Amino acid sequence: MAAAVANGLKKEQTRPNKCAVISGPTNPMVTPLLTDLYQFTMAYSYWKAGKHDERAVFDLYFRKNPFGGEYTIFAGLEECIKFIAHFKLTEDEIAFIRSSLPPTCEGAFYGYLRGINCSDVEIYSIPEGSVVFPKVPLMRIEGPIAVVQLLETAFVNLINYASLVTTNAARHRFVAGKSKLLLEFGLRRAQGPDGGISASKYCYMGGFDATSNVAAGKLFGIPLRGTHSHAFVSSFLSPDEITDKSLKHHDGSSVCKDFVSLVKTWLNKLKGSRILGGIFSETNQSELAAFTSYGLAFPGSFLALVDTYDVMRSGVPNFCAVALALNDLGYRAVGIRLDSGDLAYQSCEARKFFQTIEKEFGVSGFGKMSITASNDLNEETLDALNKQGHEVDSFGIGTHLVTCYAQPSLGVVFKLVEINNQPRIKLSEDVTKVSIPCKKRCFRLYGKEGYPLVDIMAGENEPPPKVGERILCRHPFSESKRAYVVPQRVEELLKCFWPGSSDKKREDLPPFKEIRERCIKQLEQMRPDHMRKLNPTPYKVSVSAKLYDFIHFLWLNEAPVGELQ
Amino acid sequence: MAAAVANGLKKEQTRPNKCAVISGPTNPMVTPLLTDLYQFTMAYSYWKAGKHDERAVFDLYFRKNPFGGEYTIFAGLEECIKFIAHFKLTEDEIAFIRSSLPPTCEGAFYGYLRGINCSDVEIYSIPEGSVVFPKVPLMRIEGPIAVVQLLETAFVNLINYASLVTTNAARHRFVAGKSKLLLEFGLRRAQGPDGGISASKYCYMGGFDATSNVAAGKLFGIPLRGTHSHAFVSSFLSPDEITDKSLKHHDGSSVCKDFVSLVKTWLNKLKGSRILGGIFSETNQSELAAFTSYGLAFPGSFLALVDTYDVMRSGVPNFCAVALALNDLGYRAVGIRLDSGDLAYQSCEARKFFQTIEKEFGVSGFGKMSITASNDLNEETLDALNKQGHEVDSFGIGTHLVTCYAQPSLGVVFKLVEINNQPRIKLSEDVTKVSIPCKKRCFRLYGKEGYPLVDIMAGENEPPPKVGERILCRHPFSESKRAYVVPQRVEELLKCFWPGSSDKKREDLPPFKEIRERCIKQLEQMRPDHMRKLNPTPYKVSVSAKLYDFIHFLWLNEAPVGELQ
Repeated sequence: MAAAVANGLKKEQTRPNKCAVISGPTNPMVTPLLTDLYQFTMAYSYWKAGKHDERAVFDLYFRKNPFGGEYTIFAGLEECIKFIAHFKLTEDEIAFIRSSLPPTCEGAFYGYLRGINCSDVEIYSIPEGSVVFPKVPLMRIEGPIAVVQLLETAFVNLINYASLVTTNAARHRFVAGKSKLLLEFGLRRAQGPDGGISASKYCYMGGFDATSNVAAGKLFGIPLRGTHSHAFVSSFLSPDEITDKSLKHHDGSSVCKDFVSLVKTWLNKLKGSRILGGIFSETNQSELAAFTSYGLAFPGSFLALVDTYDVMRSGVPNFCAVALALNDLGYRAVGIRLDSGDLAYQSCEARKFFQTIEKEFGVSGFGKMSITASNDLNEETLDALNKQGHEVDSFGIGTHLVTCYAQPSLGVVFKLVEINNQPRIKLSEDVTKVSIPCKKRCFRLYGKEGYPLVDIMAGENEPPPKVGERILCRHPFSESKRAYVVPQRVEELLKCFWPGSSDKKREDLPPFKEIRERCIKQLEQMRPDHMRKLNPTPYKVSVSAKLYDFIHFLWLNEAPVGELQ
Repeated sequence: MAAAVANGLKKEQTRPNKCAVISGPTNPMVTPLLTDLYQFTMAYSYWKAGKHDERAVFDLYFRKNPFGGEYTIFAGLEECIKFIAHFKLTEDEIAFIRSSLPPTCEGAFYGYLRGINCSDVEIYSIPEGSVVFPKVPLMRIEGPIAVVQLLETAFVNLINYASLVTTNAARHRFVAGKSKLLLEFGLRRAQGPDGGISASKYCYMGGFDATSNVAAGKLFGIPLRGTHSHAFVSSFLSPDEITDKSLKHHDGSSVCKDFVSLVKTWLNKLKGSRILGGIFSETNQSELAAFTSYGLAFPGSFLALVDTYDVMRSGVPNFCAVALALNDLGYRAVGIRLDSGDLAYQSCEARKFFQTIEKEFGVSGFGKMSITASNDLNEETLDALNKQGHEVDSFGIGTHLVTCYAQPSLGVVFKLVEINNQPRIKLSEDVTKVSIPCKKRCFRLYGKEGYPLVDIMAGENEPPPKVGERILCRHPFSESKRAYVVPQRVEELLKCFWPGSSDKKREDLPPFKEIRERCIKQLEQMRPDHMRKLNPTPYKVSVSAKLYDFIHFLWLNEAPVGELQ
């Protein structure tokens, strides 16, 4: 994908401190100013206190799986790395910051800002496209505190929606089943242009097959789909307006000089059919003209939107007349799209119509014509369609998918867990908001059947869990919840994607298609009860016994003692 | 704002067919490829059928007000005009389209695409920042059908979210009341980078006072706000780590050499107070250090986040110690921010604390210290806070505001209403989805009290409604709903913002601040019962008697007649 992006909006640039080349963010609006003002006021405070270079460790994580589910897909890492690879404030940006801070701020601070880059920042991350769970750091960011805080807002922005919409796509795939074609049609209803482009990228990552979004197709190499709209249908008045009526046979052997008449002949044959003729009488002539014209333009990929006037009384018969005429010339039509009404019922009726044609007119394969459904689909409606029984082969999903209608934000947070080697905790009256202190390593432990059993966080210097060795996994905040596990496989979750000035090896950013494959594979490897829609089993997230004790020691240490009055 | 944008991402370009200069879209990702593939397949079909230059008229409108309300704010027009002012496919884009269409498509089509621009498109629109209602066209777009369809997806994308989030902001302002300061803090939770930037722009338009988003501040001239986070507080360990302890008196007359001791002295005085001493004992030392340090950095604008450990037992006393020390040196602290727990209760307790200090220590004005509240606020929680009673002066609102959590998409549509002077209708089994045909003019009729009474759509050639003359307003689809109105004022809604090759005068795009002022003024001019949160009265949208008759004639004409079996 690097090449695809390079062709896109931002030119390749050389990464300042390593030899590998990482291109800039997909969206050129992702700049160091894409942040909250308080990151700059804090930077000034740190600088004024001489604290700006203190080494800090932040965890980026979320607290609760979205959509009432028990899993999340992690996405957005590549965009974060692209962002920091080019992180550098321009003179223009510095001048704007100066104008936004009080005039009492010392001028030397802007010289400091001028010199900032991410060469001294280290980033450890779970690979993009992984199945992830609450509280476990998705990323651990280490570096000078002022610099790392300047990254916070953009990182959270880039990961929050990416992870949310990828998860949403995966959930739609889960309900639709593997055999269905899933098309993302959300651009027009997305939250802004970038919302649309990100949605297309991450829906594909989460298991969709194609998008309607041309820009996303170009940027990320996603297959494109689309045929025509209702406006196309109603823009025609009658077949008489079609002037160029000729169509070459698919094998090039001959030319049909009047395709329009051939279509009309087929429509009359359908009308004359004992079974089909009872379903419709006069079909809409605008629609017939539009379908015929579309068939002339795209004889090899004819797919028609059949609900502009009436699906069974007009759209389907008109479609079939054109499809049968194309069939005479060696072309195989693709199918129909339904965009309103009772999709389950209509798909079954249309299927019967197609099957009757196959039988009555001996057109082999006609009964298997593809049926696409669209119109405000979401997880619930897919589920309802499945329960009702339907004949849909392909779903076009827009609004609910890309805006994540069922839950439009994931609560990704970015918390300080250590500074100058001192562990830090953020308390809250709400225990789910208490942060887990310390620079940590995180492991996924697998059981005998190959499924992940539990994620465990441990202090950086603790010995890692070992295969075949019993280890105690504790709930971070609930004293009584703990379990022994003997892992059959141990996977370290956080890998180094940006080594900064350390000598660690940097993980390469995999091509987009590999991330997608990882995502699909990881979803398949989960124990099914975690993934089901209704009452899924929570996946366990734990801390080591040592980390548990330390959390609670620190908690008591920091919390003020109350006085009952 | 044109100048502000010009300093931003895209350079000013000369508009092809008029002398005025319009800059490109704010987001450089808004290109002719930001569209659905089917716009290009349709363009090919039109071209193949020789229909591509047929003059078509499309209406852009929505069907239902969002958030259970009875009004919407129209936003996004300026971005649409910027988009079309530079609409031109590049060779690279054309090559990509060629690779995305079947190889059977004729090569001459790409030559046609190469020549396309918007010099022959006319756009009539309601001015941005207007209060608008369902079914009434927000924009009427006329031009060669293939070109106008290529604009559809980007226009809907640019208007859908813009109008939704502006409306959401206006609704939050309505509940919060005029006197409160409203701050948009949503960047990190927005749906992608552009979601964040658009949100900041349009929330300001809808009546917010400031944003935390630095990039949006720079692009649109929106006031910026922000101080520090929890991480800042926990990054300090104790006041001992503060090395530069000196602070100049506000008037420059003297220097306090040990501000840290001055703060500690005040904290001890507070502890010794008969009333306040009972509320807290030992405050958190990290927090005290952080507040002191922040006060040293920003003595003239000291605002502290007080809930990292415990609001009343630590945060508020620590804040007051620093604020009182600053007061000794002639600085006036701004106030506190609450970000968790019972905001109403805490704000009242903090207010009492401040008032007690004002009284007990004779610090004039201390009781009026500003209190900002944040943490998952939305219309409902603002309403609940009001009912409970609170002392909050300022609200920081993020996730729910920018993602439009209560309804994350507005159903903006783009429908063909006329082609070659032939009116067109789109039917549907769902009557709310039937489009209103014909090229129309739209008027807002005002009553005696100066409030808008009803919007009316009429055929282009009908005489417009006149002040003082009785006119029949009919519901477009419900036979029995109609009313006579004698307007005291008649406002034509659609104005020409892009004359294309016609000789109409082009409306200038007003500066952003003027759009915001228009929006706020329009909201104030509405009859209050349309605007209230609970059971608002629907505003009436109607058609002329002549248009009513024509709609129903066309409907009967196009709909197939059923056969009962």
